[in-house]
Amino acid sequence: MKNILLVGTGLIGSSILRAIHNKKIFKKIYVMEKSKKNISIISKLNINFKIIKSIKNISERVDLIILCVHMSQYPNVIKKIFPAISNKTIITDVGSTKNLNFSNLKKGLIKKMNWIPSHPITGSEVSGPKYGSKDLFKNKWCILIKDKKTNKNHLFKVKNFWKKLGSKVIFMNAKQHDVIFSITSHLPHLIAYNLVKTATDFENKKKSNLIKFSAGGLRDFSRIAASNEIMWRDIFFNNKKNMISAINLFIKNLNLFKKDIILSRNKMIISKLTNTKKVRKKIILLKHDTHKPDFGR
Amino acid sequence: MKNILLVGTGLIGSSILRAIHNKKIFKKIYVMEKSKKNISIISKLNINFKIIKSIKNISERVDLIILCVHMSQYPNVIKKIFPAISNKTIITDVGSTKNLNFSNLKKGLIKKMNWIPSHPITGSEVSGPKYGSKDLFKNKWCILIKDKKTNKNHLFKVKNFWKKLGSKVIFMNAKQHDVIFSITSHLPHLIAYNLVKTATDFENKKKSNLIKFSAGGLRDFSRIAASNEIMWRDIFFNNKKNMISAINLFIKNLNLFKKDIILSRNKMIISKLTNTKKVRKKIILLKHDTHKPDFGR
Repeated sequence: MKNILLVGTGLIGSSILRAIHNKKIFKKIYVMEKSKKNISIISKLNINFKIIKSIKNISERVDLIILCVHMSQYPNVIKKIFPAISNKTIITDVGSTKNLNFSNLKKGLIKKMNWIPSHPITGSEVSGPKYGSKDLFKNKWCILIKDKKTNKNHLFKVKNFWKKLGSKVIFMNAKQHDVIFSITSHLPHLIAYNLVKTATDFENKKKSNLIKFSAGGLRDFSRIAASNEIMWRDIFFNNKKNMISAINLFIKNLNLFKKDIILSRNKMIISKLTNTKKVRKKIILLKHDTHKPDFGR
Repeated sequence: MKNILLVGTGLIGSSILRAIHNKKIFKKIYVMEKSKKNISIISKLNINFKIIKSIKNISERVDLIILCVHMSQYPNVIKKIFPAISNKTIITDVGSTKNLNFSNLKKGLIKKMNWIPSHPITGSEVSGPKYGSKDLFKNKWCILIKDKKTNKNHLFKVKNFWKKLGSKVIFMNAKQHDVIFSITSHLPHLIAYNLVKTATDFENKKKSNLIKFSAGGLRDFSRIAASNEIMWRDIFFNNKKNMISAINLFIKNLNLFKKDIILSRNKMIISKLTNTKKVRKKIILLKHDTHKPDFGR
């Protein structure tokens, strides 16, 4: 693969830009970016790339296109790039849900594209190229979507691309992916947003300033709830069915726990509070977090 | 105040021990501690204190006693120390709920004691003296409970004590305290425990290993859910009424949010996801957290 087109240069897109420059993976880097602010930031990175307004401005074949825009923008972007891509061009994306609905695009259009969906498991509560890093993908999982119809050659090429960026690549089908991440990522974010909302509702109702005592737990949730709203709306809408199941399962657990408290079920509560520690140990063993205690920052 | 007795030397008690030694606040430090492991750790701190088995072993007057044990142990500790304390001894504690129920103690016993309840807003997911620090209270809030019957002189002395440790002291009544912290601290912990439980339930049900993809949100909740189970059982049981209200308010918000997703209420979701960012800004302004993005540890 010689040439690449990055569509969107927010936190993820600009990190890919930094990483492919650093690893010298492509001969030529093209960038499509509507935001003047983003263009201004990435232009100062001392990286050789070409900003293009339309894919028609690229005279040579593009080998890889990566969509790094919000998922709700995919149909627009696809309409823009489709007429000019060759049958040798591989397309991937970095979106957080994989069972996408393209009902407002022409029927069969997606099938005509060599699309291998990706999901790099990385990021932060901040957005934009300002916070990007060439090491964002290093030692992080990257999920590639593989199903019966997946072209092995294209899959291999995309896998190879992410491995060059330092990622650990794993294959799943879109359904598996969306179920797993509804629990490990989408539900935690939804809960964080609603917890902060509950605190705000309470503050308004009781007219008491409680945010200043946030150090005891709320603080950490508020960080997660500061994530990008467009990205998370898209995730919640795209993964609707799984989100509803996840919310229902969680509310069921909450109601049982409430009952444990009401009935002072000592053994049950201790057992529940102890079992979660095992998960923590697993997470530390997997090196997703350190054992270093967190006393706030 | 010349002499102090610390009952319990876990994370908080051992941090007080380190801090009062560092600031040279007392002439003599007495320690009551049942755990041999804790005694072994604090004995290596190069701090001059005396371990006592019974308060009767102290020949002189004790000016300040601080209970740093789990709240469910208070009745036992009070029975032990009560016969030997003078009417000039001030007692405080560091427990996380303040509307305590001492129905299994002799009637009127608590009223006979000069008890000024404290709640330093600090700590971590880890427990034990190993993780203690002389600076644990520095620039942190410490709530003192003040009601109509509070002796101003005693209150002033306890306030002065915490200020020497670097805390910012604020007064509340017990009811106010327990309502506020049910939202800012107790509910977030309860939710973290239940979120991790939901993920475990899901893993067992679907037989899929999802913990390894915890980087997208679950990781941060698992840290909070690794906190001490005895401490949190005590908090949930002691603050029962407020916990039930908080859970109900939260479930109400979750159900509304679920409906927003089902009905694809775009504007409503964006408004909810944007409003929580304002809380985050407040928390950073209050210096409870930094603006530094978190990409995991």
